Amino acid sequence: MIARLLVPQPLTAAAFEPFGDVIESAQEFSVINRGTTHQFADLAKVEVTEAGGRSRVSLYCVVPYELPLPLRMLERHPLGSQLFMPLHGERFLVVVAPRGDKIDPGAVKAFVTSGRQGVNYRPGTWHHPVIALGDLSEFLVLDRAGPGENCDEFPLDPDALLLAAP
Amino acid sequence: MIARLLVPQPLTAAAFEPFGDVIESAQEFSVINRGTTHQFADLAKVEVTEAGGRSRVSLYCVVPYELPLPLRMLERHPLGSQLFMPLHGERFLVVVAPRGDKIDPGAVKAFVTSGRQGVNYRPGTWHHPVIALGDLSEFLVLDRAGPGENCDEFPLDPDALLLAAP
Repeated sequence: MIARLLVPQPLTAAAFEPFGDVIESAQEFSVINRGTTHQFADLAKVEVTEAGGRSRVSLYCVVPYELPLPLRMLERHPLGSQLFMPLHGERFLVVVAPRGDKIDPGAVKAFVTSGRQGVNYRPGTWHHPVIALGDLSEFLVLDRAGPGENCDEFPLDPDALLLAAP
Repeated sequence: MIARLLVPQPLTAAAFEPFGDVIESAQEFSVINRGTTHQFADLAKVEVTEAGGRSRVSLYCVVPYELPLPLRMLERHPLGSQLFMPLHGERFLVVVAPRGDKIDPGAVKAFVTSGRQGVNYRPGTWHHPVIALGDLSEFLVLDRAGPGENCDEFPLDPDALLLAAP
């Protein structure tokens, strides 16, 4: 079997719409704080209160994977959204698959961010753990804490999908 | 009347405790995602659901104020917390006063962040709109959207407090 090479495409809000939100200062803005601030408001749908959950803010320091990367699994958080925002303009790779009980390897998509973009996965969106590109990347992460099982993993045949460098 | 010069002090979690949380990767961490990630979890108490509120994620692009700055007002958000995280390692100034119906100018405090720190104001903490130091700073902001009046301003005598450069 020959693996399908998954080449990351530039991340856009339109392409990512089935999976969640792109956090970027690309939309309309308001001028607030007596003219000192441009506010790009309401960029993500935060969903964390299911089954008694609450918001959790964390920082992630992430070392990069070696690329190309055979994709061995994706995970999902059924009870909450999960937002990643890079803290130093880092580009990173986003690998996702549509919600559902199984993953069709043919439906897995890969994106590369611009360095000025974050992402917010909808509850249930299959995604790979964050794939950093730089030496060491740092992210603010906004997700759900609370009771219940909120992380499922789905194994992938590592010979099926090979994630390419962007 | 001679204004009191308010010299920003280095921001620490201990000094900021009465006002909210400091978001920084200084605490204990967990190793997750098969060793690729250090997770500094649960760094802020997000409070946004009062009176039917919800989380709102925004990006702020902020021009700096000229320093020294006569302080003319502080504001508060009685119904929700408000978190600021810089997106490119920017230092910024944080001016706060204790919760309560009035502000005692003698109780106003000023901090300067390290560039690797964000802040989360508790509901009701008096604070100045974000004071950037660089040419143009960018922040991820997590606060409350929803019904009700969630921004009070309190005027200060501009001759009372002069915020110094750090």
